[in-house]
Amino acid sequence: MQNSTQPEDLSKLTLLGREAKPSKKLETFPNRHPGRNYVVTLETTEFTCVCPMTGQPDFADLKIQYIPDASILESKSLKLYLWSYRNEGIFHEHVTNVILEDLVAALSPRWCKVTANFGVRGGISISVEAEYSKPGTSQP
Amino acid sequence: MQNSTQPEDLSKLTLLGREAKPSKKLETFPNRHPGRNYVVTLETTEFTCVCPMTGQPDFADLKIQYIPDASILESKSLKLYLWSYRNEGIFHEHVTNVILEDLVAALSPRWCKVTANFGVRGGISISVEAEYSKPGTSQP
Amino acid sequence: MQNSTQPEDLSKLTLLGREAKPSKKLETFPNRHPGRNYVVTLETTEFTCVCPMTGQPDFADLKIQYIPDASILESKSLKLYLWSYRNEGIFHEHVTNVILEDLVAALSPRWCKVTANFGVRGGISISVEAEYSKPGTSQP
Amino acid sequence: MQNSTQPEDLSKLTLLGREAKPSKKLETFPNRHPGRNYVVTLETTEFTCVCPMTGQPDFADLKIQYIPDASILESKSLKLYLWSYRNEGIFHEHVTNVILEDLVAALSPRWCKVTANFGVRGGISISVEAEYSKPGTSQP
Amino acid sequence: MQNSTQPEDLSKLTLLGREAKPSKKLETFPNRHPGRNYVVTLETTEFTCVCPMTGQPDFADLKIQYIPDASILESKSLKLYLWSYRNEGIFHEHVTNVILEDLVAALSPRWCKVTANFGVRGGISISVEAEYSKPGTSQP
Amino acid sequence: MQNSTQPEDLSKLTLLGREAKPSKKLETFPNRHPGRNYVVTLETTEFTCVCPMTGQPDFADLKIQYIPDASILESKSLKLYLWSYRNEGIFHEHVTNVILEDLVAALSPRWCKVTANFGVRGGISISVEAEYSKPGTSQP
Amino acid sequence: MQNSTQPEDLSKLTLLGREAKPSKKLETFPNRHPGRNYVVTLETTEFTCVCPMTGQPDFADLKIQYIPDASILESKSLKLYLWSYRNEGIFHEHVTNVILEDLVAALSPRWCKVTANFGVRGGISISVEAEYSKPGTSQP
Amino acid sequence: MQNSTQPEDLSKLTLLGREAKPSKKLETFPNRHPGRNYVVTLETTEFTCVCPMTGQPDFADLKIQYIPDASILESKSLKLYLWSYRNEGIFHEHVTNVILEDLVAALSPRWCKVTANFGVRGGISISVEAEYSKPGTSQP
Amino acid sequence: MQNSTQPEDLSKLTLLGREAKPSKKLETFPNRHPGRNYVVTLETTEFTCVCPMTGQPDFADLKIQYIPDASILESKSLKLYLWSYRNEGIFHEHVTNVILEDLVAALSPRWCKVTANFGVRGGISISVEAEYSKPGTSQP
Amino acid sequence: MQNSTQPEDLSKLTLLGREAKPSKKLETFPNRHPGRNYVVTLETTEFTCVCPMTGQPDFADLKIQYIPDASILESKSLKLYLWSYRNEGIFHEHVTNVILEDLVAALSPRWCKVTANFGVRGGISISVEAEYSKPGTSQP
Ligand SMILES: [Ca+2]
Ligand SMILES: [Ca+2]
Ligand SMILES: [Ca+2]
Ligand SMILES: [Ca+2]
Ligand SMILES: [Ca+2]
Ligand SMILES: [Ca+2]
Ligand SMILES: [Ca+2]
Ligand SMILES: [Ca+2]
Ligand SMILES: [Ca+2]
Ligand SMILES: [Ca+2]
Ligand SMILES: [Ca+2]
Ligand SMILES: [Ca+2]
Ligand SMILES: [Ca+2]
Ligand SMILES: [Ca+2]
Ligand SMILES: [Ca+2]
Ligand SMILES: [Ca+2]
Repeated sequence: MQNSTQPEDLSKLTLLGREAKPSKKLETFPNRHPGRNYVVTLETTEFTCVCPMTGQPDFADLKIQYIPDASILESKSLKLYLWSYRNEGIFHEHVTNVILEDLVAALSPRWCKVTANFGVRGGISISVEAEYSKPGTSQP
Repeated sequence: MQNSTQPEDLSKLTLLGREAKPSKKLETFPNRHPGRNYVVTLETTEFTCVCPMTGQPDFADLKIQYIPDASILESKSLKLYLWSYRNEGIFHEHVTNVILEDLVAALSPRWCKVTANFGVRGGISISVEAEYSKPGTSQP
Repeated sequence: MQNSTQPEDLSKLTLLGREAKPSKKLETFPNRHPGRNYVVTLETTEFTCVCPMTGQPDFADLKIQYIPDASILESKSLKLYLWSYRNEGIFHEHVTNVILEDLVAALSPRWCKVTANFGVRGGISISVEAEYSKPGTSQP
Repeated sequence: MQNSTQPEDLSKLTLLGREAKPSKKLETFPNRHPGRNYVVTLETTEFTCVCPMTGQPDFADLKIQYIPDASILESKSLKLYLWSYRNEGIFHEHVTNVILEDLVAALSPRWCKVTANFGVRGGISISVEAEYSKPGTSQP
Repeated sequence: MQNSTQPEDLSKLTLLGREAKPSKKLETFPNRHPGRNYVVTLETTEFTCVCPMTGQPDFADLKIQYIPDASILESKSLKLYLWSYRNEGIFHEHVTNVILEDLVAALSPRWCKVTANFGVRGGISISVEAEYSKPGTSQP
Repeated sequence: MQNSTQPEDLSKLTLLGREAKPSKKLETFPNRHPGRNYVVTLETTEFTCVCPMTGQPDFADLKIQYIPDASILESKSLKLYLWSYRNEGIFHEHVTNVILEDLVAALSPRWCKVTANFGVRGGISISVEAEYSKPGTSQP
Repeated sequence: MQNSTQPEDLSKLTLLGREAKPSKKLETFPNRHPGRNYVVTLETTEFTCVCPMTGQPDFADLKIQYIPDASILESKSLKLYLWSYRNEGIFHEHVTNVILEDLVAALSPRWCKVTANFGVRGGISISVEAEYSKPGTSQP
Repeated sequence: MQNSTQPEDLSKLTLLGREAKPSKKLETFPNRHPGRNYVVTLETTEFTCVCPMTGQPDFADLKIQYIPDASILESKSLKLYLWSYRNEGIFHEHVTNVILEDLVAALSPRWCKVTANFGVRGGISISVEAEYSKPGTSQP
Repeated sequence: MQNSTQPEDLSKLTLLGREAKPSKKLETFPNRHPGRNYVVTLETTEFTCVCPMTGQPDFADLKIQYIPDASILESKSLKLYLWSYRNEGIFHEHVTNVILEDLVAALSPRWCKVTANFGVRGGISISVEAEYSKPGTSQP
Repeated sequence: MQNSTQPEDLSKLTLLGREAKPSKKLETFPNRHPGRNYVVTLETTEFTCVCPMTGQPDFADLKIQYIPDASILESKSLKLYLWSYRNEGIFHEHVTNVILEDLVAALSPRWCKVTANFGVRGGISISVEAEYSKPGTSQP
């Protein structure tokens, strides 16, 4: 299309970042305050996956909360991780739990909760809240 | 009416969905994370039934929340179920409890709560909150 | 249903209003200030009709605004008029214009505008704004 | 007044309701789900009484919440009951408690709470929250 | 009633204001800046009158705006004036215009506008906006 | 100033209240429902005192909540009491506690809480919440 | 994944819609009120495309407004059309204009406006508003 | 008072600003972009003066807007200027205009507007908007 | 500090972006729809510069709007440009105009407007709106 | 720059504060109500530090809450303390905990909580909540 973005439009941009890829790898850095139970909350309004029945896109706002143990989640890797669902067919209730399980595996947190608010379908919106506690940790 | 929708208006529409019907059947699919107590919330601003005294329409916003056991509620069937109240004469307090009981029967959930906010009548709005817990399940 | 509203539930209610019916008749009373162009606005969040393609219910918030000439709209008759659409199959764009035309016929207003905001379908909401001016009347 | 509502303005209105009167009688209908503790909330922004000291009108938003036992409050009778305060001189703190007591007498509820938010006087607003529990009923 | 406000409750209050009465008199004080067209806005959420058909109370939020000429409206007198409608039976569209006309008579303003937003009846709310301009004054 | 309020501007105003004075006296009237623990909340956005360091004015929104025992606070006396701080130099944390202590002395309440939200200074806002419980009274 | 949606989860769902595909085809139905210039507004919070430089997903809220001439846009076809951008690399400013041009080609409207609000990147959000008018049509 | 701020509390504070005084002097600095008509807006929620009739404090939110000519208003001097009204008895409509006139005298702006929103008295709030234009300057 | 971020914390992060620098260079890409006057809006809540008098940091929310001619602003370069003010001492009214002038020089837009809302100082907030029009372009 | 703030612009400003410097010193004044556990909350929308990986600025809204023991935090010193992070490279999770620890060291409070809400990066926002309790003090 003549009226859309052309390859040569990009040729003089020197500051904008370069190519990235979706990834299932969640990176971490060390928690320097493991003596304290504190809560980290990450939120995005930019999650999308696909309905396993109709193949049509679904959209959600996500909230991820956790109490770190030894590791803190690096947020750029979370962005690439969430991107990896862009073409996956999965029900709302399933994907929320799967994200929780992947976070627990990567972070080994003391506590973690994932909340997903999906857009209206057929006049009805759906949200799902799932949480995990390491045995012996009280919830915040 | 000449100025309203005509049968031939529909003849070239190839993408829009086809006819549906109200139904009392609530369909489900399997819960793949039964080891975790998590909360699913469905909300709609499109519920209507009829006043049993005057026959006039009533309108409500509905919130349905539950902790699934083996089954998850499929939301299209919920839409058709709620549609089935369109011509039913029933008081606000009754219909909220009846919906709760139908959900409990269909889902056998660990916990379920129905909240209905009805529109203003005579300067007064009414909302009703009813909840159910399977014996041995603590509320979220 | 044993757990729903029973006929005998109504038997001791002496204050609640009695039966009403939908109606296409819009009643009016005299405008006592025809020397002034002033604006009357009626709003409801309780409009419903039916999709002419799928037969499923649609819901809208309606705003009706007009500058009266000799007549003012009585709002109880408007309620019964809007109720008359409950089982009519009609597209959003059509029904908004038809309501405007019925109001113009009943009120002969100097100016009139109907705004209808319909609920989300397929991730997309639709609103329609249609207005009429009697020749020689400037809009407010 | 020539420019105000005239008796003959009413003569052609066939749909609008007829005369009503304030009343201290609170009517009820049967609770069909007494096996469940559920909460009913009634709200109005249209309460007015009179200052016992100055005779000037006071205005409040009211919220009434209760867990029914055998009886459910019919809301039209509540409207007429609240109207009965229109000419009563009574302090904010007193009227909130008196309404609570009248509701408890009429409904014999398991729990009841009345919240009244009165408008600003002398730069200060006042709200009052009073609640009642039947012995052995825990609050919601 | 033993549990309501008693005459002796008032006996020790030395600071609270004394009795007032509703009044149709609108008082003014001089405009000290008549060389400038400026806008004064008075708002209240505490207006009530009576339905001329049913005798039931109606409630509105009022906004009064004007460009003063020689006189400015004293707001305590406005309060007593609005109180005078407490027992008057009058339709929404009529009372808004009558208030405008009384303000124009009392203030002789360059411009004046009255907006009244009445509460929901039968699922429908009504608001009325009426304005006046002295010949030769442009609206703000 | 010729363009400001002149003494003669006041001469024709017959309805507006007369002079008042700041006062440290908090007046009360009897609680007619001492058998019930209920909460009264008074709020104002019109509190001002002075910074003890710079002498500059400070401004706060205040919320006063209490459970009455034998006495209820008359709000006009509260207005005059709060006015008494207009020229007092006192830090935010101190004045909130002092107001709480004066209320406890005047009302002998079962419970009382004062919340003060002061405006931004140096990009930082400060709020203070202080509360009192009569021994043996649980907080609401 | 054992914990995600399985093919057999879908086997008992009889009510949920079947497969759909993205499409560039915008379908229409006849405008039954071409004698009136009225405005139709379609809004979605579910638009996504891809950054042409980095390949990463972008997300936007879209508002489409138009005055129909002979044709009205069918919203299900709009949904499939917007889906077609899911894998397209295109800058925000370009895609907003391209959507406008496709709508103008499909609808031949009297007036059309597209507003796209994209999410924050590098602490900066971008929105784009583009509009078209058929010669001789004034904007609403 | 033992429980209030003590002089010695101040003795170790080295950073908090020192004493200031109310002042009628409005200071300015040079406008470095006089070739452009641009708008500066200053807002405060901390204005107080006194009712000339009752001597009681009044409170307002103020918005000051202007198009500078040669001078820009320094905001610390505005703060001290507004403080100077703390003990002045003046009606709402008068003080808004007097502030406008003082700003015009100090800044000689191309355009200036003052908006004052005063708190509720007797259930009624008052706001005043006054503006000035240098001959030949169009309003923004 | 042992409890703060350590250089080795960064060593295993492979996905997070690398070092960047503030820059006065504003990059652009070609406008592919120059035949249409359309508006692009960029907003950030992350602008900071320094008070030229006290050296203390100031903070603002910025809105940049423009109608492109041949060039569109690349937003990553805008981010680095705004960063360049982090250590600059400059008054609010000056910096808003300087940013406008730099944008006009870099983009040669048909129209451009910069709005800056600075935080509260001394109880007063300041915002500045400055705009530019290429001769012969009407504002949006 | 000719169009920016000039040194001589400052020469006639007599009221604006003089130079200040960032500082790690947190000043206090005595708590005059140590017999009561009360909560002080300080909030700012003006915190900025630097990403330790990319060197780019980060921005946050901060909330600091504490129950004082013997000392109250002077807010001007807090402002200078927060300023000291302007050029520090530190992750969100680390800086929130470090601020908490510095406050605990300076104030020896009975309880303290720091909440930091950082701006969106890569479509994801991060907030961190950390709290401290002196042994034997219950949280508010
Ligand atoms: Ca979204
Ligand atoms: Ca929990
Ligand atoms: Ca519960
Ligand atoms: Ca609705
Ligand atoms: Ca129009
Ligand atoms: Ca009210
Ligand atoms: Ca309770
Ligand atoms: Ca009201
Ligand atoms: Ca007008
Ligand atoms: Ca205030
Ligand atoms: Ca408490
Ligand atoms: Ca336009
Ligand atoms: Ca103007
Ligand atoms: Ca403009
Ligand atoms: Ca900010
Ligand atoms: Ca806690």
